[in-house]
Amino acid sequence: MIRFECDYTEGAHKRILERLFETNEEQTPGYGMDEHCEKARAYIRKACDAENADIHFLVGGTQTNTTIIASILRPHQGAVSAVSGHIAVHETGAIEATGHKVLTLPSDDGKIQAEQVKELYDAHWNDVTHEHMVQPGLVYISHPTENGTTYSKSELEALSKVCRECGLPLVLDGARLGYGLASKDSDLSLADIARLCDVFYIGGTKIGALLGEAVVIMNDAVKKDFRYMIKQNGGLLAKGRLLGIQFETLFEDGLYYEISNHAVDMAMMIREAFADKGVSFRYESTTNQQFPILPNDLLIELGKKYSFSLWEKVDATHSAVRFCTSWATRKENVELLIEDIKAL
Amino acid sequence: MIRFECDYTEGAHKRILERLFETNEEQTPGYGMDEHCEKARAYIRKACDAENADIHFLVGGTQTNTTIIASILRPHQGAVSAVSGHIAVHETGAIEATGHKVLTLPSDDGKIQAEQVKELYDAHWNDVTHEHMVQPGLVYISHPTENGTTYSKSELEALSKVCRECGLPLVLDGARLGYGLASKDSDLSLADIARLCDVFYIGGTKIGALLGEAVVIMNDAVKKDFRYMIKQNGGLLAKGRLLGIQFETLFEDGLYYEISNHAVDMAMMIREAFADKGVSFRYESTTNQQFPILPNDLLIELGKKYSFSLWEKVDATHSAVRFCTSWATRKENVELLIEDIKAL
Amino acid sequence: MIRFECDYTEGAHKRILERLFETNEEQTPGYGMDEHCEKARAYIRKACDAENADIHFLVGGTQTNTTIIASILRPHQGAVSAVSGHIAVHETGAIEATGHKVLTLPSDDGKIQAEQVKELYDAHWNDVTHEHMVQPGLVYISHPTENGTTYSKSELEALSKVCRECGLPLVLDGARLGYGLASKDSDLSLADIARLCDVFYIGGTKIGALLGEAVVIMNDAVKKDFRYMIKQNGGLLAKGRLLGIQFETLFEDGLYYEISNHAVDMAMMIREAFADKGVSFRYESTTNQQFPILPNDLLIELGKKYSFSLWEKVDATHSAVRFCTSWATRKENVELLIEDIKAL
Amino acid sequence: MIRFECDYTEGAHKRILERLFETNEEQTPGYGMDEHCEKARAYIRKACDAENADIHFLVGGTQTNTTIIASILRPHQGAVSAVSGHIAVHETGAIEATGHKVLTLPSDDGKIQAEQVKELYDAHWNDVTHEHMVQPGLVYISHPTENGTTYSKSELEALSKVCRECGLPLVLDGARLGYGLASKDSDLSLADIARLCDVFYIGGTKIGALLGEAVVIMNDAVKKDFRYMIKQNGGLLAKGRLLGIQFETLFEDGLYYEISNHAVDMAMMIREAFADKGVSFRYESTTNQQFPILPNDLLIELGKKYSFSLWEKVDATHSAVRFCTSWATRKENVELLIEDIKAL
Repeated sequence: MIRFECDYTEGAHKRILERLFETNEEQTPGYGMDEHCEKARAYIRKACDAENADIHFLVGGTQTNTTIIASILRPHQGAVSAVSGHIAVHETGAIEATGHKVLTLPSDDGKIQAEQVKELYDAHWNDVTHEHMVQPGLVYISHPTENGTTYSKSELEALSKVCRECGLPLVLDGARLGYGLASKDSDLSLADIARLCDVFYIGGTKIGALLGEAVVIMNDAVKKDFRYMIKQNGGLLAKGRLLGIQFETLFEDGLYYEISNHAVDMAMMIREAFADKGVSFRYESTTNQQFPILPNDLLIELGKKYSFSLWEKVDATHSAVRFCTSWATRKENVELLIEDIKAL
Repeated sequence: MIRFECDYTEGAHKRILERLFETNEEQTPGYGMDEHCEKARAYIRKACDAENADIHFLVGGTQTNTTIIASILRPHQGAVSAVSGHIAVHETGAIEATGHKVLTLPSDDGKIQAEQVKELYDAHWNDVTHEHMVQPGLVYISHPTENGTTYSKSELEALSKVCRECGLPLVLDGARLGYGLASKDSDLSLADIARLCDVFYIGGTKIGALLGEAVVIMNDAVKKDFRYMIKQNGGLLAKGRLLGIQFETLFEDGLYYEISNHAVDMAMMIREAFADKGVSFRYESTTNQQFPILPNDLLIELGKKYSFSLWEKVDATHSAVRFCTSWATRKENVELLIEDIKAL
Repeated sequence: MIRFECDYTEGAHKRILERLFETNEEQTPGYGMDEHCEKARAYIRKACDAENADIHFLVGGTQTNTTIIASILRPHQGAVSAVSGHIAVHETGAIEATGHKVLTLPSDDGKIQAEQVKELYDAHWNDVTHEHMVQPGLVYISHPTENGTTYSKSELEALSKVCRECGLPLVLDGARLGYGLASKDSDLSLADIARLCDVFYIGGTKIGALLGEAVVIMNDAVKKDFRYMIKQNGGLLAKGRLLGIQFETLFEDGLYYEISNHAVDMAMMIREAFADKGVSFRYESTTNQQFPILPNDLLIELGKKYSFSLWEKVDATHSAVRFCTSWATRKENVELLIEDIKAL
Repeated sequence: MIRFECDYTEGAHKRILERLFETNEEQTPGYGMDEHCEKARAYIRKACDAENADIHFLVGGTQTNTTIIASILRPHQGAVSAVSGHIAVHETGAIEATGHKVLTLPSDDGKIQAEQVKELYDAHWNDVTHEHMVQPGLVYISHPTENGTTYSKSELEALSKVCRECGLPLVLDGARLGYGLASKDSDLSLADIARLCDVFYIGGTKIGALLGEAVVIMNDAVKKDFRYMIKQNGGLLAKGRLLGIQFETLFEDGLYYEISNHAVDMAMMIREAFADKGVSFRYESTTNQQFPILPNDLLIELGKKYSFSLWEKVDATHSAVRFCTSWATRKENVELLIEDIKAL
């Protein structure tokens, strides 16, 4: 069985493990105050062209989203998200557990647009009973989205503009950020994101690390006391160096981009093979997740040799499925898959 | 500088890193459903002599305590703890953030006794205004405690008995459990703990792992839906194998005990050296943390060569400090320290 | 200006105020333990044909819904509600503030049906990633709904059956329960509701009281420690008699029904007048709220003499508005309105 | 049985009930936006000499404290309180239910002093692990306290000064504020309190109203969106006029002071009678609660004719008890009690 079901089926990129070995006996202070964390911070600040950014390392996506959102909102405020956003659907109510509603906007592709945010904001404040409703308090987006789609620079600029006009911090979930940056269709750079968002995170777990997400805080108000919030949310690791060493390795000489580019290249090869067969796609993804719509019988056939995940039933005889690639995806396996697609 | 300030200054035991390397390219399902987690569970069940235990792997102590406690309590209930308990003092209000008060009992050595729990329970229910007060909902202890002290089997049996009579689940924080088991003075085994507690955890972070705590649930009511709670609290790692592989390594052939015994042996050597000089101790610890009370001028002297942590000012000229040992503590460094203690 | 904008524009029914006067100097114990509360409980138990019901008196709807829901759910569970349900829209996130998501079902008329609940329940449990999503933990409905619509006995029986099969407590918000009972189209009695629901409340604020809601708990698990929950949620009034006296007055000889019938009669007169003019309605309400759809210019005309609330823009030239009646609605005012409707 | 057990055994002052009758048929907007609320606000602003104060009316003490505290704190912050403070002991964890720890200071008489706050603040910030602990976020006091004791102007000035230096909003719980103002020993006026505190409330429930507390917000940051917070905490009454009318009545021509003075006069008569018999007191109260320490056999004797509440066992043969007075306490009953005290 060759697995394409998700982007976390293997451990970490070899260079990360090697670095853990090399540094293992170093004695360092705990809780993210060690030199590896400091170096990783410096590399990331540089990559973001953001000297004033605060950088923190957390464990996983749910924890990171929760910590960021709970840091920003007052009790009567909610987080605006696409209806399909990770915080709206797949975090077992972690945001609500901190007391906050997720205010959802319709979206077919996982993205939300500036006008939608403006409309929701105006609808709230124009309602005479607005005090009876949750006040929008921040805007949450993912880049790329759960569906592999990406924001363009102009879309993010428009969102950022509306958010700043409305006083809504813009939070970007970058669990798969590298794959968004590596997308040929996206003109957004890390520096753009740092310039346009208030807080975002650079995902490690799904891009070569064992675990770990790097939070980048641009907004001074959010910086205040953030380490308390990490601790309260269970993210202040005693051996915080584990996260620092990984991000140091990923960002010191471009490994993060290398991994991301590889995965996106592999994904686009798969996409092309499907497209060549006239297969259509559930979402227009140019990142490491591809969502072809296939007849169920062909899926059963393919499923004998390859694992992928069932995404959505499209009609009685067709389903959308997800193929994922990662740092660990081998070109020879992709080529085998392509051969089999051709033969379908 | 030779460091004795805490038990998490280095990375992981070498065998753990090696195992991570060996297994790195294996493809496994996510979220703790892989074979390494399963094997680790089987080893731990056996070590606990508890075939029916549910075992889950979480990231760190704060997250683990929070997840367990929030799983058990109804909103109007609180967790009974020693006033110095980790959940009462050092988790930035993580328990309160889930809505629950920590009800504290006085304690000088970090332990609480069965009679104290009974008194607090009776005082609550005998008060005619008890509905105006937080109801005790569970009892939380640490073994060993923050102060290195341990419960004897008879103490834990008495606590367990009272808890069961009062309908209060007994939760044991085992962030340093191995060191408690390794203590020459403690007659408590893992199987005893499993028999006497409703939930406990076996600490990995401070005993040789990079990170990770293994939760052992004996009480059926607490087992229900626990994975939802892990997810909500940010502990369901995509690459859950990272935790499983570590606990598999620690428990497949006794590495956990080996590490613990080594650290305790080193600590007792240090203790003896201080005791031989007539030094007294803040707590009667027979585990990997030692708390000698020393004149401040000698501390300054020692501090030139060794790091340790300041625990408490005892009087104008004396302070209690903490020396910690771990898997990584080298005997030659301990011998150097002992020489210097002798020469004080 | 004659006001029809809501059902709480005046104080309390005169008999309630009189009773407050008569009993004012009695000395009673606090916190709902007085004889008036006890009498009110007995009257309500009898009206519900439910000798084993626990009855508690709370202050208002938001507090009541929050207290009930927080009492029932575990942290990873959510409340299933119509998308237009009060808890989903108009309680400023009070449910989320207790840590719980509201899981919404589509609804045009404010009602939800048994099959919808079954589908949502099955969809949750059939999803392999269900632990990543909020688990449905109870079902919340209103009778009548926000839109004036009511459940039939067969609908409620079907809902109740599904809920019991799925282990989901059924919670009925009866902020306007009397008007539902008074509806000529609803065949549901208080005893039916008590038999079919796990918890419900009988609204006082909108049916003749100054304030107050009577919670009726049928499910033994929910009864446990409910007074703690009331206290924690700010509903345990020192002078709890204020609520007891009102419900005693409402239920000792049928005043609650008298008020409800009056209001519904007045509302149906208004409805008929609009219908006679060929006006259509946003919702098919047979209770004290009526939602005619009218041309905007006629609304401006009517608005000079009568207050009502704007509900929804229907198209460029028409809007749905809400007319409410209550115990305080005078027949002569309704007749004036009808004259003016006829003249439109 | 003549009752002195608490200050809420009767209904409301007669003038309040009369006013409810007079205004009952007025049609007003809901949710505290009516003219009575506006008038009450104006009277209170004047009484506080605070033109810029925001005034809101809530239902009871627990709700009021919770709403204020949750409005102010960020998630990692706690409320500093005397160990005997109402929020620390008698609100069933309502503060913790909003996610916040109560940080307690020792106190024998229910008061806390400026130096204690400064020490706690310094201790927090001087601790190198402060991020692992709950950050002090506001200071909560009661005037008078649970024990009937009062702050002097110089004490409150000192507290206020320290709080402002430390950036900690000062919150004063005035559930019995009138009795503090009426105390012959207290030189604190409403205007002083408004000048020195960030938020406080003027209790109605225990001083002549059926229910209701008037929150006075001086600090602009706390004013923002406070009505959302009231709604979320269940305090935004549909018939908000019920609260406005009561406070209008209490403050339009000094009824609040009249009631308070009467109760304190009655309490001091009782105090004097006990003192004349050589009885000592648990607390030095000059307000409406008195805490004489009496031999248990005399208490049994007195208890045949008078109700009071048992406060604390002092030794094997003596107990402290509480006698309360209120607007409803009749002088003839106090005189009877005094006769009986003399005859003890």
